[in-house]
Amino acid sequence: MRKIDQSFSVPFRYQVLFTEGLFKSDNTCLVDTITAGHSPRPPKILVVVDQGVQEHHPLLLADIKRYGKQHQDRFQLIDEILVVPGGEPAKNDPKLVDTILEAVEAHGIDRHSYVLAIGGGAVLDMVGYAASIAHRGVRLVRVPTTVLSQNDSGIGVKNGINFFGKKNFLGAFDPPFAVINDAHFLLTLDDRDWRAGIAEAIKVALIKDAAFFEQLEREAVAVAGRSMEPMQDQIFRCAELHAEHIRGGDPFEKGSSRPLDFGHWAAHKLEQMTNFELRHGEAVAIGIALDVIYSHLEGRLDEASYLRVIRLIETLGFSLFVPELKQNLRNPEKLDSVIRGLEEFREHLGGELTIMLIEEIGRGVEVHEMDTELIIQSIEKLEELSKARKTSPEKLIHT
Amino acid sequence: MRKIDQSFSVPFRYQVLFTEGLFKSDNTCLVDTITAGHSPRPPKILVVVDQGVQEHHPLLLADIKRYGKQHQDRFQLIDEILVVPGGEPAKNDPKLVDTILEAVEAHGIDRHSYVLAIGGGAVLDMVGYAASIAHRGVRLVRVPTTVLSQNDSGIGVKNGINFFGKKNFLGAFDPPFAVINDAHFLLTLDDRDWRAGIAEAIKVALIKDAAFFEQLEREAVAVAGRSMEPMQDQIFRCAELHAEHIRGGDPFEKGSSRPLDFGHWAAHKLEQMTNFELRHGEAVAIGIALDVIYSHLEGRLDEASYLRVIRLIETLGFSLFVPELKQNLRNPEKLDSVIRGLEEFREHLGGELTIMLIEEIGRGVEVHEMDTELIIQSIEKLEELSKARKTSPEKLIHT
Repeated sequence: MRKIDQSFSVPFRYQVLFTEGLFKSDNTCLVDTITAGHSPRPPKILVVVDQGVQEHHPLLLADIKRYGKQHQDRFQLIDEILVVPGGEPAKNDPKLVDTILEAVEAHGIDRHSYVLAIGGGAVLDMVGYAASIAHRGVRLVRVPTTVLSQNDSGIGVKNGINFFGKKNFLGAFDPPFAVINDAHFLLTLDDRDWRAGIAEAIKVALIKDAAFFEQLEREAVAVAGRSMEPMQDQIFRCAELHAEHIRGGDPFEKGSSRPLDFGHWAAHKLEQMTNFELRHGEAVAIGIALDVIYSHLEGRLDEASYLRVIRLIETLGFSLFVPELKQNLRNPEKLDSVIRGLEEFREHLGGELTIMLIEEIGRGVEVHEMDTELIIQSIEKLEELSKARKTSPEKLIHT
Repeated sequence: MRKIDQSFSVPFRYQVLFTEGLFKSDNTCLVDTITAGHSPRPPKILVVVDQGVQEHHPLLLADIKRYGKQHQDRFQLIDEILVVPGGEPAKNDPKLVDTILEAVEAHGIDRHSYVLAIGGGAVLDMVGYAASIAHRGVRLVRVPTTVLSQNDSGIGVKNGINFFGKKNFLGAFDPPFAVINDAHFLLTLDDRDWRAGIAEAIKVALIKDAAFFEQLEREAVAVAGRSMEPMQDQIFRCAELHAEHIRGGDPFEKGSSRPLDFGHWAAHKLEQMTNFELRHGEAVAIGIALDVIYSHLEGRLDEASYLRVIRLIETLGFSLFVPELKQNLRNPEKLDSVIRGLEEFREHLGGELTIMLIEEIGRGVEVHEMDTELIIQSIEKLEELSKARKTSPEKLIHT
C-alpha cells in the first residue's frame, strides 16, 4: 500500500505585555505591537469592548478614538467600536459571534488586520473564537481586564463559546497575536472579581512552584486589602508560570492530560450547578480546597500542608463551601451531583480520566481515578472547616 | 515594561493512505488507522457521507455497517450515518454544520473519537470545519472520493464553509488525523469530475516538477480515456508534491504568499461568476492557461513552453475559455469582471497581493502586481486559441 507520511511543526510566537493606561497619548505599547506585524499598509483594527468594562470606564471609547486619531498614520481604527455583554452570557449567545463576524466582513478585516478584544475572560473567549474562524483566523490582540484573565485565560491559546448548554463546546486552539495586560483596569473590579482571579495563582503555585505559594501566603492580607503592587507581582508570576506550562507541554491538548486544570473538575460542575452565580475563580478556590483535602485523605499530602492551603484560601476571603456540594452526593448519576463533574471533565477532553492531585506544595501528580467515598469524606471535611471558620474570630481579621 | 515572550511549536503528523475497497472485509486500513490513536477504550466513529457518493454506491451504507459490526471489538460505529448534500451547496448551508455538531453532541463524540467524512472536497471542507470547532477539534479522517480531493484539498490542513456569500469565509487550519484515498470511488465519477482534478496536478507540476509535467503529457491521452493506472500514479505524485509543499512552507498561512494557488485568482472568480457551473478544476485549468499566457506575454516564459501547457489542457478535454472572461474586462471595478478577482484574492489572504507566475516548466516565481492591459491581452489570446481549437480536427482525436 502506498502512503505519504506527513509531519510538520507550526511555530507560534506572541508577547504578553504589561502596561498601565493603554490608550494614554504617551503610551505606544499598542501601536508598536500592531505595526510590528509587517503589514505593507497601515493595518485595520476592529475594537470590541466588554460592556461591564465600558460602564466602569465611561471615557474608554472616547480614549480609544482619540488614540486612533493620534496614530492614524500607523493604523486604521474602525469607527464602529462594538460593545458586547460581559460575563458568561457573552459565551451563551451565538448571535454575538455573528455580530463580530458581520463587522469583520463589513469592514474588510483580513488576516493581516486586527481584532482588539477588551474585557474579562468570557468576552475574550467569545471574540477570540469569532476571530479564529473568520478567514481561518484574523489577528487577535487580547486586552484582559480582570485578574483571572490577566493571569490565566487571557494569555493562553484557547477560544470558545458554550453550545448545547455545554461549556466551551465550540472553540478553537489559536494563539493570540499579542496580549496586553493593563493594570489600570484592575482598579475598578469589585472585590469578588479582584479576589477570584487569585485562585488560579494558588492553583499553579501548588502544582509547580512552592516559592510562589509562599509569596502568596506572605502577601495574602495585603492582596485581600486591595494592595496593587503585590497583586501586579502575582499576576506577572502566575502568567509566567502559565506561559511556561503551555510552552513546555501540549499546547493544543492532543493528549488526555491537562495539568493546569487542578481543582477544575469540581469547579466547572459547581459553576454550572449554581447557574454561574459562583464565579469561575470562586469555584476554583473551592475545587482546590476539595482536592487538597482529598490528596490528604488519600495519604499523599501531609496535614500541615493542606491546612496551609485552606488558610490561604480563607485569608483571601474565599468561601470554602456552597450547599450544592452536598446535592445528590450519594447519587452521582444525577445531573446535579458534583461527582458527575468527574465524568463530564473526562468527556470534554476525551480519552482517559486524568486528574491532578498534590503530593507536596509545589508538586502535582496525575491520577486516573478518584474514589467516590473519599470525595464524599472530603466534602464533609470541607463543610466542617467552613463552619469552624464562620464561628472563628480570625475571619474578622482576615477579610 | 515587564513582558513575557511566548514561543512554541506545535507538531502535527498524519498519514495519507492509498487503498482500494476501504470497507471490504479483508481491508484493515481504516480499523488499523483509528486504533493507532492510543484510545484507552474502543473509539467511537461518526460517519458522514456525501449524498452524491451514496447515490453512485447504493451499497455503501450497508458496507460501512457490516464493517462496523465486523470490527465492533475495536471501534464503535455510531449507528446513525449522516448523509449530506454534495458539491458547493454543502458549503453554502450553515445548517449542515449544525447537523454535524448535533450528532457530535448527541453521540458523545469527544477529542479521542473520530468523524469519518466520505465525499468530494466540498463535503470534506464542511465536515472538517464542524469537526475542528467541536470541543476545539475532534479527530477527522477524510476519505476523499474525487480526483480533486484525493490529490489536493483532501490531504491539506484547511477546513471551511462559505458565509456572507464569500468562499471559505469561515474556517480553520486543522490537520486531519488521517486521509484515506480509495481508488474505487474514482470509477463512478462522471467525465467532468474525473478530468477536473487533473488541473491541480498540472498546476503543481508547472511550479515544482518538470518531470511530473512530462509524465502528465505522456499519459494525457490515456487519462482522458479513463485509464485507471496512470490516474492513480498522477494522484499519488500530486498528493506527494502538495504534502511536501505544506511540510516545507507556511502550513497555516501566516504570510501573504500562497504558491499553490497558481492560476487560482482567476479560477475563484470564474467559479463565482458562473454560479459554480464551472467546477473548481475546470476553472483552475482556465486560470492556468491564462497565467501561462500572461507569463509568456510578460517575457518570462518562452512560447514553446506555454504552448505545451495549452496543448496538455486541451488534450485532457478541458475548455480553455468561458464567455465570463470577457465580461466588463475594461471595468475592473465591477463585481462581474474577472479582473476584480485579483483584489478579492488579495483580500482573502490579507496583506500584499502575491501571485505565482511561471518562468519555465517546473519553476514558479512570485510577483506582487499584474498589469491589467496584459491580462486583457492574455484573455484575448485565450479566446483565439480556444476558437482555433474548435475548428481543428485534433479535437476529435483528443476527446
